[in-house]
Amino acid sequence: MSENKKIKVGITHGDINGISYEVIIKTLMDPRINEMCVPIVYGSPKVAAYHRKVLNIANFSLNHIRTATEANPRRANIINCVSDDIRVDLGKPSREAGEAALAALKRAIADMQGNLIDVLITGPINKATIHSKEFHFHGHTEYIEQSFGEQGDSLMMMVGERLRVALVTTHIPLAEVPQQITAGKIYSKIRILEESLIRDFAIRKPRIAVLGLNPHAGEDGVLGSEEEAEIIPAIGRLRDENRLVFGPYPADGFFGAGDFTRFDAVMAMYHDQGLAPFKSISFEKGVNFTAGLPIVRTSPDHGTAYELAGKDKASPDSFRQALYMAIDIYRNRQRYGEMTAHPLKSSEEKEE
Amino acid sequence: MSENKKIKVGITHGDINGISYEVIIKTLMDPRINEMCVPIVYGSPKVAAYHRKVLNIANFSLNHIRTATEANPRRANIINCVSDDIRVDLGKPSREAGEAALAALKRAIADMQGNLIDVLITGPINKATIHSKEFHFHGHTEYIEQSFGEQGDSLMMMVGERLRVALVTTHIPLAEVPQQITAGKIYSKIRILEESLIRDFAIRKPRIAVLGLNPHAGEDGVLGSEEEAEIIPAIGRLRDENRLVFGPYPADGFFGAGDFTRFDAVMAMYHDQGLAPFKSISFEKGVNFTAGLPIVRTSPDHGTAYELAGKDKASPDSFRQALYMAIDIYRNRQRYGEMTAHPLKSSEEKEE
Repeated sequence: MSENKKIKVGITHGDINGISYEVIIKTLMDPRINEMCVPIVYGSPKVAAYHRKVLNIANFSLNHIRTATEANPRRANIINCVSDDIRVDLGKPSREAGEAALAALKRAIADMQGNLIDVLITGPINKATIHSKEFHFHGHTEYIEQSFGEQGDSLMMMVGERLRVALVTTHIPLAEVPQQITAGKIYSKIRILEESLIRDFAIRKPRIAVLGLNPHAGEDGVLGSEEEAEIIPAIGRLRDENRLVFGPYPADGFFGAGDFTRFDAVMAMYHDQGLAPFKSISFEKGVNFTAGLPIVRTSPDHGTAYELAGKDKASPDSFRQALYMAIDIYRNRQRYGEMTAHPLKSSEEKEE
Repeated sequence: MSENKKIKVGITHGDINGISYEVIIKTLMDPRINEMCVPIVYGSPKVAAYHRKVLNIANFSLNHIRTATEANPRRANIINCVSDDIRVDLGKPSREAGEAALAALKRAIADMQGNLIDVLITGPINKATIHSKEFHFHGHTEYIEQSFGEQGDSLMMMVGERLRVALVTTHIPLAEVPQQITAGKIYSKIRILEESLIRDFAIRKPRIAVLGLNPHAGEDGVLGSEEEAEIIPAIGRLRDENRLVFGPYPADGFFGAGDFTRFDAVMAMYHDQGLAPFKSISFEKGVNFTAGLPIVRTSPDHGTAYELAGKDKASPDSFRQALYMAIDIYRNRQRYGEMTAHPLKSSEEKEE
């Protein structure tokens, strides 16, 4: 691939006191990364140097640039987004770290809006310290949705080697989940999921499993009414439209019996129902992907992990997977765009 | 062990149209089972013969007896609990099968109350077909609780090789879960759990992890208030009493990071939160145990599995584990009873 065509990967540094720099540096040290993309870290060269020193990494450095247009395609680059007075306080939450996380995120999003980078990988943040007038969201997903779309456009998806899980509801109290489970919402989230499986994961005719809300998927109404009132009608409408949508399945038996291997993705009704089994199965190799938006954004499935900060114990596996996956999805979207730009008539149409 | 001292294991046949007979027969065929216990199946010799024929099992038969007192200690025994006119309809729910399941369960419970059997393993039932005036419960657990204790005495526990999970709430609609999560209920369920870990699993000083109710365990109140209002106060009270109770932990990260390996048991707030990750991790080897009752009852963690009935495809692993575990728990309780019947002064007391 010509160097000009290499995908530009924006990476935000997340929380400077956690393991974010460690997993970023360990990933970008591998020279194979530069073969497939041009990494641009939005962060602080000073903080990066601090972490390299703590971790005893001598054989790697980042190329300092002022803007993304200056990125050296043969190096891992870094843009300074914060003051040089910034202090790292390993393993501790601090307001300073929250502000630094937000500054890097804002700069990366602006560059994405200006088409200076192609995909975005976000380092883990502390939701308490980043919280501010500008960032009044429960996480990256909601903030990025607002930057690139309308409310409800995006879908939180966790992607592992053997399993993809998407969520109808995300970061809300459990008591608010049942009232949010409406046929309309389930329908539109499954449409986003199907579209993403086709366009982002190159699955021509995706098979989607839908979980119930209640224990045993309501056991024919004995253990809850939402399956019959909302979930089954939504599935019926999708099936009438000739989509391969199945369920609702009881969550425990579905994951326990390995039924998920027969589907391209699973739509869970709420956070813990989807993510607790997902993480049990994908064990620290999962990637968080925000589907439904015009841009590609992924992140590792772990948090700041303060307790591991500076100890050289953090695994870069999930971050590396997040980077690979963002590149794959970007390429799949390009191919899909090319395929559908000048469509030939399908064989069915020709027969008519 | 003398033959008179062998533990008498009552086994109910569950649903005659599912895989229950297959897993029972495959388990009892192993001659080692008779070394450690005297199995007594509550069911139908005719139905057992039908399943043996379908499964092509020629080298095993059950010893027909009229009452548990007649059990041959060197054989696997069976007591007829149903009419000889009964018809098996493989893979299909039927009212006849529901009545046969209930008849066997009633006879086994009566024998347990009369001390004719020592422990009980229940074969899987179909909750829809067994449902009747006499059986108006959501499952075995609630029916057995009523037969041997007061409401709220029992605790549903799933036990695997690496993981034990107990539930504060069991078979209720998700919308009713938040209001049931009270400090009092959490406290009493954890007390039952701790007592069971000591007495039934011979763990002297159990370490118990408690999950949050909301995503991220409420994230300091931002994603729900039950952690701060109910769960944390309950944990505080237990800690004040010098019990090793920790949390609340976010369910997804807790299972994903393998944190459960540092605890003897996990208290989940509701059905899918505990069982979906449990089954993802224990993959068909888990056992359902009803803690908190004067009697020992276990069951496999699978259902009737109609789709596998008669095909020689059902794995007896979970049923066999359920049998082993019931015997282990019975012996642990005996030892605990002996230890505490004539207690020596503890070394701490002696020092005073």
